[in-house]
Amino acid sequence: MQFTLTREYLESLAQAIERQDQQYVRQMLNELYPADIAEILEELDLDEAKYVFSLLDEEEAADVLMELQEDVREDFLENVSSKDIAQRYIDNLDSDDAADLISELPHLLRSEVLSHVEDAEQAANIADLLNYPEDSAGSLMAKELVKVNIDWTVTTCLREIRRQAEEIEQFYNVYAVNDRNILQGIVSLKRIMLSPTKAKVIDIYEPDIHSVNATISVEEVASIMQKYDLVVLPVVDDLGRLLGRITIDDVVDVITDEADKDYQLMSGISENVETTDNIWILSRARLPWLLVALFGGVVGSRVLSNYEPQIQIYPEMAFFMPLIAAMGGNVGVQSSALVVQGLANDSLSRDGIIPKLFKEFSVGLLNAMVCASLLLAYNIIFDHSLALSFTVSIALVAVISFAAIFGTFVPLALDKFKIDPALATGPFITTSNDIIGLFIYFMLGRLMYGVFP
Amino acid sequence: MQFTLTREYLESLAQAIERQDQQYVRQMLNELYPADIAEILEELDLDEAKYVFSLLDEEEAADVLMELQEDVREDFLENVSSKDIAQRYIDNLDSDDAADLISELPHLLRSEVLSHVEDAEQAANIADLLNYPEDSAGSLMAKELVKVNIDWTVTTCLREIRRQAEEIEQFYNVYAVNDRNILQGIVSLKRIMLSPTKAKVIDIYEPDIHSVNATISVEEVASIMQKYDLVVLPVVDDLGRLLGRITIDDVVDVITDEADKDYQLMSGISENVETTDNIWILSRARLPWLLVALFGGVVGSRVLSNYEPQIQIYPEMAFFMPLIAAMGGNVGVQSSALVVQGLANDSLSRDGIIPKLFKEFSVGLLNAMVCASLLLAYNIIFDHSLALSFTVSIALVAVISFAAIFGTFVPLALDKFKIDPALATGPFITTSNDIIGLFIYFMLGRLMYGVFP
Repeated sequence: MQFTLTREYLESLAQAIERQDQQYVRQMLNELYPADIAEILEELDLDEAKYVFSLLDEEEAADVLMELQEDVREDFLENVSSKDIAQRYIDNLDSDDAADLISELPHLLRSEVLSHVEDAEQAANIADLLNYPEDSAGSLMAKELVKVNIDWTVTTCLREIRRQAEEIEQFYNVYAVNDRNILQGIVSLKRIMLSPTKAKVIDIYEPDIHSVNATISVEEVASIMQKYDLVVLPVVDDLGRLLGRITIDDVVDVITDEADKDYQLMSGISENVETTDNIWILSRARLPWLLVALFGGVVGSRVLSNYEPQIQIYPEMAFFMPLIAAMGGNVGVQSSALVVQGLANDSLSRDGIIPKLFKEFSVGLLNAMVCASLLLAYNIIFDHSLALSFTVSIALVAVISFAAIFGTFVPLALDKFKIDPALATGPFITTSNDIIGLFIYFMLGRLMYGVFP
Repeated sequence: MQFTLTREYLESLAQAIERQDQQYVRQMLNELYPADIAEILEELDLDEAKYVFSLLDEEEAADVLMELQEDVREDFLENVSSKDIAQRYIDNLDSDDAADLISELPHLLRSEVLSHVEDAEQAANIADLLNYPEDSAGSLMAKELVKVNIDWTVTTCLREIRRQAEEIEQFYNVYAVNDRNILQGIVSLKRIMLSPTKAKVIDIYEPDIHSVNATISVEEVASIMQKYDLVVLPVVDDLGRLLGRITIDDVVDVITDEADKDYQLMSGISENVETTDNIWILSRARLPWLLVALFGGVVGSRVLSNYEPQIQIYPEMAFFMPLIAAMGGNVGVQSSALVVQGLANDSLSRDGIIPKLFKEFSVGLLNAMVCASLLLAYNIIFDHSLALSFTVSIALVAVISFAAIFGTFVPLALDKFKIDPALATGPFITTSNDIIGLFIYFMLGRLMYGVFP
C-alpha cells in the first residue's frame, strides 16, 4: 500500500509528460495520496509539475497544493487569478488549510480572493481565522466541528449530527454547548449510540475535558496535547464560547518544526533551511554564526598575542591548545544541550539555579578528573616536561569545570530574559569557551613553568 | 482547566502528607489528570510519593503509573507482588500499556505476572504483543479495536459495535474485515449512521486506507502517520490479517524521543538522559564522547609537534589556531546537521552524492570567501605580516571548504552503512576537523613564509 518514489518512476513519468500522454500520467497518479503526488511534483521541473497538476481534479488539486512546500506552492499560484484561487482551491479546502493558503498570499490579494469564495460560511470562517496571530492556538484551529446543545435529546442529536457531519470529512468528538455556545463538554458517538433515544445530552455528556483559549501559543497547545495524549482539542474564547478545534496532525508538524529549529540553531544555522534550498539561501542562513565565530576567533587571537613570549619559549604549549579548546567546547555544549532540552520539555527540576549549577559542576569535575588523569599519564609516559604535563591536566580540569557551569548558566539566563535558550548551544558557547579556556591555559602555564623550571 | 504545578502547591501537599491528612491529599488530587498526578509524584520523595499513590483508586493508579518516568515506575513496583501488579495495574490498562509495563519487568517475573492476570483475553493480547521486537510497529500497537465483517448489514454492525465498544475507551474508526480477518478497509461511524439499516458494510466501506505490517520500524510508522496526517493506523500481518492499531499519541512520543536523541548525539551525549538523572548517570552518558575528543586532541598535539620549529620562529601563527579550528568545526557541524535532518525527514534530493558534495562545497566556499576577506582586511589593518595574513585567510578558505565537504560526506557514508548519521554531527566532526584543519594551516604557513620572507 505504501508508495515509494523511485528514480525509475520519475523517469517514466517524465517521458509520459514529454509525449503529453494525459491518460498515462493520470493512470500513474491513480491510487496515490495527495502527499505522494506533492512529493512527486517537487521532484519535477516547474513546467512538468504544472502540467501534471493541471490534470488533477479540483478537490485533489486543492489537497495536493496544501501538501507542497511553501515556495513551490507560491510558484504554482503565481499566474493563477484570484477567482481561480478562490473557487478551485479555497472552496475545496477545510477552513484551517484555506486560511493558511490565504495568509501566504500578498496582503493586497487576500480580500480579493476572499470576495470570490462562493460558500459564504467558508469565507466568514476564513476571515475569522485570519485575525489570529500566526503563533496562536487560533491560527492552528479549524472551524469545522460537530456540536449539539446540552438540552437536546439523543434523537435530536442524531438528526443534527447527520446534518452537520455531511460537510465534515472526519470528526472524533461531538461537542456539547449551552444556548450561548459556551462549551460544556463532549459526548462520544459511542455514548450517543448506546443511550436511549429519549435521554438528554446533559445526562450523558462528559464535562471534564481539556480546552484552550484561542490566544495561547502553539507551543503550549503542543505540550498540552502531548502531555494528555489528546487527538483533538477544542478552542474557546475568553467567555468560554466554542470557536473551533485543533487536531493532532497539525500539532505534530509544530513539534517537528520546533525540534528542527532547535537542532539547526545548535548547529549554527539561523534560518529554517533544507538541503534542497538554493546556494544563496543556504549561505545566508549560515553566515551569521560563522561571523560570530570569526569575531570570537579574532578576540581569541588578541588574547593569545599577550602570551607571545611564552609561546616562543615553550612552543610545546601550542600543541595542546586545540585539545583544551575542544574539550571545553564539548563539555559546554553537552551541559547547555541538556538544559535546553529540559526547558523545552519542561522537565527541569523545580530547584533554583544554584543546585543545578552545582550538579553540573560535579558532573563536569568527575569527567574532567578522568580525562585529566589519562592525559597526565600519557604526557609523562611520552616524556613531555612536568611543567607541560601538569599545566595541560590542571588546565583541563579548570576549563571543563568552567565550561560545565557556563554551559548550564547561559541557557538558563537566556530563558529568564525570554530569549530562545537554544541560541546558547551553538557556536556561541564553543566560541566563548575557546577564548576563556585558552586564557586559563596560558595563565596556568605561566604559573607552572615557574614551579617546574 | 490547565493545571500548573507550583512550589506552593507542593509545599501544602507535603504538609498534608506529613500530617497524614488523607482527605485533604485526596481533595488536592481531585480533578487532576493522571499526567498531572505523575508530574506531582515525581517531585516528591519516594516515600511521600508512595503514600499519595496508595490513596488513588485502582484505575487511576494504573494510569498514573504509566505516566511516570521509567525509573520512578521501577521504584514504585519494587516491593509489589506479582499478583498485585497483575490485578491492580495490568487488568486496568489497555493492552499496549500493559505490555509496556510487563516488558519493563525482569524476565523471570513476566510470566508470573501474566499468570495472575484475571482477564484471559487481556493476558493473551499481552503475550502476543510481547513477541514483537522493541522497535517494531507491533510493539507500539494496541489490540483493542472495533471491527465488523464486510458482509454484515448496518443493523448487525450497530449491535456489534455497541458490544465491542463497551470495552474500549476511545475509538476513531471501525475496521472492515472478511471472514478470514483480513483487513478490507474502514467504515466511519458517520457513514454507518447515515446509511439505511439494510445496507451492507461492503456497500459503504472505504477500501482505500493505509495500513502497515507489524514488522516495520516505529520510525517508519512515525513518518507514514506524519506524511499522511493519520490519527490511527491499522497493523496487519504478512497475510493482511488485522492485528491491532497504532494511535498517534504513541507516535508523537516516538517522534520527540527521536528528535531528543539526535539532539543529544549531536551534543556529544551517548545515552538518553535528563538533567534530573543522578550525577553518575549523567557523567557516564557524556564521558565516551569526551574521550573521543581527548584522543583527537592528543593526535592533534602530535601533528602539531611536527611544526615546533615553525611555532618557535613564528609564534604569531599560534594566535590564529583557535580561529581556524573553530571555523572548520562550525562549518562541518552546519553541513552535517543539514544532511542528518534531511535523512531524518527524508527530504534529501534524489540526486547522487556528487551533486550534494558540490553544492555544499559552493556554499562553504561562498561563506569562506566572505570570512577570509574580512579577516584579511583585519590582519592587514592591524599590521600583521603579509605572510601571516595570507596564511590565515587562505587556510580559512581551504579549511572551510574541506569541512563543508567532509561534514556532508560523513553522515551520508554512515547512513549507507546503516549507522545512525546523527553520530557524525557531534564531537566526531569537530575533532576530525580540528586535526585536519590545523594540519592544512601549518602546511600553508610553511609555504607562505617562504613566499613572503
